[in-house]
Amino acid sequence: MSGSTAAEAAAILKEEVDIVIPTIRNVDFLEKWRPFFQPYHLIIVQDGDPSKPIKVPPRFNYHLYNRNDVNRLLGPRAHCISFKDSSCRCFGFLLSKKKYIFTIDDDCFVAKDPSGKEINALEQHLKNLLSPSTPFFFNTLYDPYREGTDFVRGYPFSLREGVPTAASHGLWLNMPDYDGPTQLVKPLERNNRYVDAVMTIPKGTLFPMCGMNLAFNRELIGPAMYFGLMGEGQPIGRYDGMWAGWCMKVISDHLGLGVKTGLPYIWHSKASSPFVNLKKEYKGIYWQEELIPFFQSVSLPKECTTAQKCYIELSKQVKAKLGKVDEYFNKLADAMVTWIEAWEELNSSGEKSEALSNGPAK
Amino acid sequence: MSGSTAAEAAAILKEEVDIVIPTIRNVDFLEKWRPFFQPYHLIIVQDGDPSKPIKVPPRFNYHLYNRNDVNRLLGPRAHCISFKDSSCRCFGFLLSKKKYIFTIDDDCFVAKDPSGKEINALEQHLKNLLSPSTPFFFNTLYDPYREGTDFVRGYPFSLREGVPTAASHGLWLNMPDYDGPTQLVKPLERNNRYVDAVMTIPKGTLFPMCGMNLAFNRELIGPAMYFGLMGEGQPIGRYDGMWAGWCMKVISDHLGLGVKTGLPYIWHSKASSPFVNLKKEYKGIYWQEELIPFFQSVSLPKECTTAQKCYIELSKQVKAKLGKVDEYFNKLADAMVTWIEAWEELNSSGEKSEALSNGPAK
Repeated sequence: MSGSTAAEAAAILKEEVDIVIPTIRNVDFLEKWRPFFQPYHLIIVQDGDPSKPIKVPPRFNYHLYNRNDVNRLLGPRAHCISFKDSSCRCFGFLLSKKKYIFTIDDDCFVAKDPSGKEINALEQHLKNLLSPSTPFFFNTLYDPYREGTDFVRGYPFSLREGVPTAASHGLWLNMPDYDGPTQLVKPLERNNRYVDAVMTIPKGTLFPMCGMNLAFNRELIGPAMYFGLMGEGQPIGRYDGMWAGWCMKVISDHLGLGVKTGLPYIWHSKASSPFVNLKKEYKGIYWQEELIPFFQSVSLPKECTTAQKCYIELSKQVKAKLGKVDEYFNKLADAMVTWIEAWEELNSSGEKSEALSNGPAK
Repeated sequence: MSGSTAAEAAAILKEEVDIVIPTIRNVDFLEKWRPFFQPYHLIIVQDGDPSKPIKVPPRFNYHLYNRNDVNRLLGPRAHCISFKDSSCRCFGFLLSKKKYIFTIDDDCFVAKDPSGKEINALEQHLKNLLSPSTPFFFNTLYDPYREGTDFVRGYPFSLREGVPTAASHGLWLNMPDYDGPTQLVKPLERNNRYVDAVMTIPKGTLFPMCGMNLAFNRELIGPAMYFGLMGEGQPIGRYDGMWAGWCMKVISDHLGLGVKTGLPYIWHSKASSPFVNLKKEYKGIYWQEELIPFFQSVSLPKECTTAQKCYIELSKQVKAKLGKVDEYFNKLADAMVTWIEAWEELNSSGEKSEALSNGPAK
């Protein structure tokens, strides 16, 4: 695909992709993405006050949902979608009927590669998702399916077919994705190093997933992409991507699916306040010391053959083992079950597929 | 160190590093490495016919050993050092008294970074070895200790100290390190992609290690860096680095040490014959299908607190579990024990430290 024009590239799989954007403001940033996003359908999830108008630049194909839609479409299950936190993006995952999701934040712009060329992030994510992953053995030349590279000497041939790719985690130039304490200590640090690699995160290894530049195969792993209870009314924020990433990774490992990180880069413009971040994060900073050992030791029974089944089983283990860390995890475990109920209601049969067409018209 | 001159950089730790070079020819390639290697001591291990003279460019500080030295210094244990195979390099690891080893092949030249600057491979390896590793959790911005980067949001603070680094595996521009079958299929493929990253290979993940551009902390992991029985009289070749890498990685994982891969690049010039390689490799190609599951399931008891003890225990497991794959692995398991005996004899006390001074004078 490397030789294709932007227009050709953007047309790839356009019937199979939804771009999900959580926002609290006018999505003017889309203007910068027009050459790449215009052929695709956007699902914009308005965070916060639903009475505030959100302006979308002309000639985009989109549906815009707000809190009223969450309440209307989910009814008593609406509480599983966070309010005043970008984790509301997962409402878009729920409503989508497409095979692939690309989700991006409204402070993310088009980055350039070292040659000065604008990076089509969505195209790279689709390449990552459409080629296999190699979670069982590390390839020292990184992605063996990339043009001009391969598996190196000593890589078992039986593993060279790889496994299906569940998720593609992209990175950020400019503002690094640091926590509040690191932002406070290194206020001026910027990421300006372009690492020209995509790699599979090995089986059994966890990573810190960020939702601001992320794509996944909704059919394979969608039900595990729940971004948790964050923001208003919750004791924690800014752990939505982490939570989803840890859940998604242990489930991908169990199901024999791959997770990649690396290219594509986006340009991350916003310096969020380290003081505000610290307030949102501080419980997470100590909870994660217990969460990581928990996720490292999660074992799912072999009867769990789908992402849904795995997620329900995981919710039980969260309640059993993390409930004692804080009452919050009991509530979160219940919300995980609610999320799967909502997923199954909206996705298992045709009757609720009017959800999308009931959304506000573009 | 990034701002230092080549001369300053080359002087780093010069009393603590040996450069080990296996060769069958005049080591003229050293002329290209002079700005970087001259301050260091070289251990050149002549492979093959000891009567053939090896010319070393002037003004290098070196010892040259050949098969006669192997026989003289190891006596009845000499059989553990391979003949007519670059795996004889590990004889240099045995004789060294230094803390760090850098080993490089004689067809490896100085590579350039994308700015056109010559890469001081040894300096980068020392940076890698002197900074910690992070085997327990993946950092999406790669090496968190590198200037201008850090741990990203969601990385547990308790893991940010990292662990000591046992080994640094460098990569190759130009000729990729492919096996015979891949060389046959892709005769023209070259690696010209410079990936500006160093990363820790996660705990529990194996990788294909190549000995042609490799550094390690001899005190921490030296006894596990045995390159096996390869070449003349053996049913297999070109698996020396693989064998050492798999053994070294499971032992590093057990001991809580880190293994890195990535920078530095060297320029790999030689296209070895794919037909010859296939002949050397073909048993390895099917054996590795059994070796990888074996190494993935190795478990070492907690009494194994040193690389030596781990290696002896591993030799027992090799004999018990791989002996049935082929008689060769019984012989290899015995050679692993012989190697440790030789290591302990030459390294545990002072009496054999005359080994080096008995070597042919520079």
